[in-house]
Amino acid sequence: MSFKVSGFPELLPEEKIIEEKILNIISEKYKQLGYTRIETPAVEKNEVLTAKSWNDVSKEIFGLYGLAQWCKDTKSYSLHFDLTVPFARYVLDHKNDISFPFKRSQIQKVWRWERAQKWRFREFYQADVDVIWDDRWNDNSSNYIFYDAEVIFLLLSTIEDIFKEFNLNKKAIVNINHKKIISGYIGDYLKLRDKLQKIAIIIDKKAKITEDEFIQELKNLNLTNEQIEKILYFINLEDFTKLENIDSNELQQGIQDLKIILNYLEKLGLKEQINVNLSIVRGLDYYTGIVFETTIKWEENLWTISAWWRYEKLTSYIDSKTNFSGVGGSIGVSRLETIIFENIELKQKTSSEYMLVNFASTQDDIIKLYKKLLENWLNVEFYPKDDKLWKQFKYADKKGIKYVIILWEDEKEKWILQIKNMETGKVEEYSLNMEDDRILLA
Amino acid sequence: MSFKVSGFPELLPEEKIIEEKILNIISEKYKQLGYTRIETPAVEKNEVLTAKSWNDVSKEIFGLYGLAQWCKDTKSYSLHFDLTVPFARYVLDHKNDISFPFKRSQIQKVWRWERAQKWRFREFYQADVDVIWDDRWNDNSSNYIFYDAEVIFLLLSTIEDIFKEFNLNKKAIVNINHKKIISGYIGDYLKLRDKLQKIAIIIDKKAKITEDEFIQELKNLNLTNEQIEKILYFINLEDFTKLENIDSNELQQGIQDLKIILNYLEKLGLKEQINVNLSIVRGLDYYTGIVFETTIKWEENLWTISAWWRYEKLTSYIDSKTNFSGVGGSIGVSRLETIIFENIELKQKTSSEYMLVNFASTQDDIIKLYKKLLENWLNVEFYPKDDKLWKQFKYADKKGIKYVIILWEDEKEKWILQIKNMETGKVEEYSLNMEDDRILLA
Repeated sequence: MSFKVSGFPELLPEEKIIEEKILNIISEKYKQLGYTRIETPAVEKNEVLTAKSWNDVSKEIFGLYGLAQWCKDTKSYSLHFDLTVPFARYVLDHKNDISFPFKRSQIQKVWRWERAQKWRFREFYQADVDVIWDDRWNDNSSNYIFYDAEVIFLLLSTIEDIFKEFNLNKKAIVNINHKKIISGYIGDYLKLRDKLQKIAIIIDKKAKITEDEFIQELKNLNLTNEQIEKILYFINLEDFTKLENIDSNELQQGIQDLKIILNYLEKLGLKEQINVNLSIVRGLDYYTGIVFETTIKWEENLWTISAWWRYEKLTSYIDSKTNFSGVGGSIGVSRLETIIFENIELKQKTSSEYMLVNFASTQDDIIKLYKKLLENWLNVEFYPKDDKLWKQFKYADKKGIKYVIILWEDEKEKWILQIKNMETGKVEEYSLNMEDDRILLA
Repeated sequence: MSFKVSGFPELLPEEKIIEEKILNIISEKYKQLGYTRIETPAVEKNEVLTAKSWNDVSKEIFGLYGLAQWCKDTKSYSLHFDLTVPFARYVLDHKNDISFPFKRSQIQKVWRWERAQKWRFREFYQADVDVIWDDRWNDNSSNYIFYDAEVIFLLLSTIEDIFKEFNLNKKAIVNINHKKIISGYIGDYLKLRDKLQKIAIIIDKKAKITEDEFIQELKNLNLTNEQIEKILYFINLEDFTKLENIDSNELQQGIQDLKIILNYLEKLGLKEQINVNLSIVRGLDYYTGIVFETTIKWEENLWTISAWWRYEKLTSYIDSKTNFSGVGGSIGVSRLETIIFENIELKQKTSSEYMLVNFASTQDDIIKLYKKLLENWLNVEFYPKDDKLWKQFKYADKKGIKYVIILWEDEKEKWILQIKNMETGKVEEYSLNMEDDRILLA
């Protein structure tokens, strides 16, 4: 029986050590490229959270009330369900104190009242980056197209750094598309603009259904065979420049932007992992420009572990007088760590690397040693009492502490330490110079 | 007008940079001494949170319900109000997977529905450490008395490291007491055990009232003048060993424990900052042994920035069949950072240290340089478009970016960089060797 609420994942210490490493890599990498960290409260006003039916997520919102009688009726706040809405609100509240373009990162938990199933959690980490700018000073959003490339570069490098940290031989692939290409093709060229949204939804689930089912769904929208064939041609097209002779300003703008991004990416060293995929849609909602997703192959399935997008006038849903647009992306930390947990051995159950054995006869000296090791930034703990030696070793072994250090009574004058490697069983002697400030044990 | 919910603090980027530094120092220090990091969900079952009227905080709990109709009646979960109760629940749920004594750290936000006022927030960070053990295998809790000293040492070092990081010339003072001394003195020696709880509450608020008010409150409990005098003697006593002739097992046990702790602390290098203060109470609730608090003097007031305590059978409130006891402590991050914000200049508004100027004529080379600087782990951003130079400088200046790097067209062959220090205005030349993997700009 568990006392924990179900659907809210909780890690054991050995798993949390791995999650901490992942979160640190993400945090440092985001900051390295100038995406300065912010943090918003867990709680937002309901009118902000439901200002737009953001991806229909509003039915999954956790509302708040006062458990005690005196504030039982206060029900106007809720937990945030993503970091994009709180970020838009943050920009509005602080627009006079921050300077634009504003590059921010945000790594926090979000909450969604979903039915629990594998890789679907009610509480999970999101790791977002966004750049946002004031449209009033930038009439041409192509101005900031470097940021699209930068965000792809940043997220892909971060994922690669994580795989490297855990020696995982996995390759992430970026699928990239531009909304204006699909929108121009279907809206202008096929003249189906009124059915664009519905067709996009069908294209979005293409990978999950058979080609027959796909065609049938398009037929249900009363599309002609010729139109269906042209859609099939489009989503399977490998070289998007073949669309350059089509007469659609929107489509040509999309192609031009996409070329600039691919050019930037190549200069940043990214080519093989980048794959133009005209069938990537990711909702035709508030994403208006380039859309991307990063997938990795895992157990015969492709899993999306990162996604990003452009959006226009993001803040206008909350305050219609404002005009902030941007580009952003996110790494799905919970999904990524699930993959990593299944691929590595979880041995280390504590942050301690060294344990000092406690003998009553040498305790004063060992505490001196303990202090010195701490001053040398080693991760070390002192066994708390003069127990039998086998008990002290059992403690270190169960926790996965790598080295156990013993100072025997007859060696304390000379400060000769016995250091046992708990993995190999090997014992080495180390002669300590207590006058020296620096210690290098390993 | 603000779109944010009031009472939930939110930091500007320049403040969040400082908070991140504080949280990192705490996190690393806690882990260094083997307090491995865990994280619990924000949400716990109501029956767990209200299992005991923990410090009367239950009336401040934020309950959760489904905002959408379909789950409106689900009201059995709430946000946690501290990290001690979730930790007790964590130990119960994972007792077969963790090994004891279990040393853990936990740095998370907690939520309390308090009326908003200065230094009282509805959402704030707590940074806790605890050691917990299974009493069934340890009949004598004095066994683990080293941990009491370790926790004091850890929290005090952490606070000192934080002050050092920001060059703050502040000294933290530890006030230490043992519940058994006060309990033995009042219960056994003064024979007022039935009034112990009420007297303790009066002693706890001694610093906030006058001596006359203090005496009057004791008189209201029908204490004799002699008893009141003995209480005054007790709480003003500077040398607690003067109590060694009093006939009370409980009191003598407290004195003995306290001496052991002070001895450990001295060996760990702590003496001047440690102050035995017999009037420290901190609630006579689930703290049963040593209690401490760390205060710093600030604007003529003493502020408590850290506290810690022993507790017995912590988990028994949730599951009465269990017997886990321990010692733990906490740093009040929000209070500490408020002090720091008021004492330092907040110049840096971004994580970027360097900005690369963008010229259309040298863009390809600058992107190469950008990549190379990133590979050298510098925090660097590339200005996103070929703007006028003054605009690019203005951007760097507003964000508090320290160095701006220019590669002029006629110097790109030789890779000579101009590096401008934005604080001093000084420009230095740096000749780059693009064949070399290592770059040291500053």
